[in-house]
Amino acid sequence: MNARKADKTDKAWRSVCPIARTLELVGDKWSLLLIRDMRFGKRTYGELLDSPEGIPTNILADRLKRLEEAGLAVRSEYQDRPVRYAYTLTEKGQDLGNVLLALKRWGEANIPGSRALRQPAAPSRRKVSVSGTK
Amino acid sequence: MNARKADKTDKAWRSVCPIARTLELVGDKWSLLLIRDMRFGKRTYGELLDSPEGIPTNILADRLKRLEEAGLAVRSEYQDRPVRYAYTLTEKGQDLGNVLLALKRWGEANIPGSRALRQPAAPSRRKVSVSGTK
Repeated sequence: MNARKADKTDKAWRSVCPIARTLELVGDKWSLLLIRDMRFGKRTYGELLDSPEGIPTNILADRLKRLEEAGLAVRSEYQDRPVRYAYTLTEKGQDLGNVLLALKRWGEANIPGSRALRQPAAPSRRKVSVSGTK
Repeated sequence: MNARKADKTDKAWRSVCPIARTLELVGDKWSLLLIRDMRFGKRTYGELLDSPEGIPTNILADRLKRLEEAGLAVRSEYQDRPVRYAYTLTEKGQDLGNVLLALKRWGEANIPGSRALRQPAAPSRRKVSVSGTK
């Protein structure tokens, strides 16, 4: 992939490490929770606003914009008057959502009292293998 | 597991969601980068200080304390005079490190120019499966 075509991701990074870069790109809590919600089937602004963590509206608008700019989500009009948009994950957003499912299982196994509120929306197109050594 | 025995993790959570709780517990960038470094074999304070992201010393000390309190890392004395400590991941810290390896692969695949600086330290004890639906 040509770096020139890398969405808005050809920015000045602090590190070449792919983990550090991923966290720099979407490592704030709200971005990851939005990817979670889209991975679990939420699509509209109203649905995304309605999470138990209570995302503030200005943060929601800002993070949706960032996710679009990073090529992780796309916006499409689903209603005309007034115009309303739906947000869905791109393939790489979906892949990142799958990593969050591993985080979900870690939390369920290691944080007492945590429990999943929803099930993932649909089978993802591919499996991601997570092993210790690769 | 009894919630009363849950290390320091029986705190007031904002959400029951295991992803949100995991992010609340260790979701700040520095904690995750330290888990990365330990997962990749760094052990001493000096080694952990020496990352390309340039962690400030006060943040390093604070995050190591938090990781210990959350039961993700343990500290052991490796030198007497002066006393020096080494930090290693517990089993659940190691498991979380494995999730970061999935993040590493996502970053390598999706962020041009990123590349891993080190290889994981040792084979992990178990495999974590990440699939789309589970």
